[in-house]
Amino acid sequence: MRVKIFVYLKDGVLDPQGKAVERSLHALGYKEVQDVRMGKYLEVELDAPSRQAAEERIREMCDKLLANPVIEDYRFEIEE
Amino acid sequence: MRVKIFVYLKDGVLDPQGKAVERSLHALGYKEVQDVRMGKYLEVELDAPSRQAAEERIREMCDKLLANPVIEDYRFEIEE
Repeated sequence: MRVKIFVYLKDGVLDPQGKAVERSLHALGYKEVQDVRMGKYLEVELDAPSRQAAEERIREMCDKLLANPVIEDYRFEIEE
Repeated sequence: MRVKIFVYLKDGVLDPQGKAVERSLHALGYKEVQDVRMGKYLEVELDAPSRQAAEERIREMCDKLLANPVIEDYRFEIEE
């Protein structure tokens, strides 16, 4: 299965990278842009016996390695 | 409008960051994972008179700043 994983900072956590992108966009004339938040996007190919098994394994991988649960949230989509 | 932007390496472009994540997942016992690709995920708040206008502006921003068109592709979703 192909899995798409999004990892992003929790609401309320400062995002200096997003702020830098926002300032650059403003400098280029895109003043209509506000509140840029920057995160990670992963695509993963996964072997799993079922959708439920895949969900469990991905949640584990996110908690252990892909996201920092103190400051980040994640969500994912499974495509078959 | 709220816009979600995904920026990812084109097929065929080497992805050392994705490879590193893949190796780490294997080391943690997640051997069922293959072909990890790593990209960027941005959320942006945008003022635009119409959906079409927003699409045009976002495409410009991606081409000029958010993606490197030589090695990266992007796609985006607009939510109202």
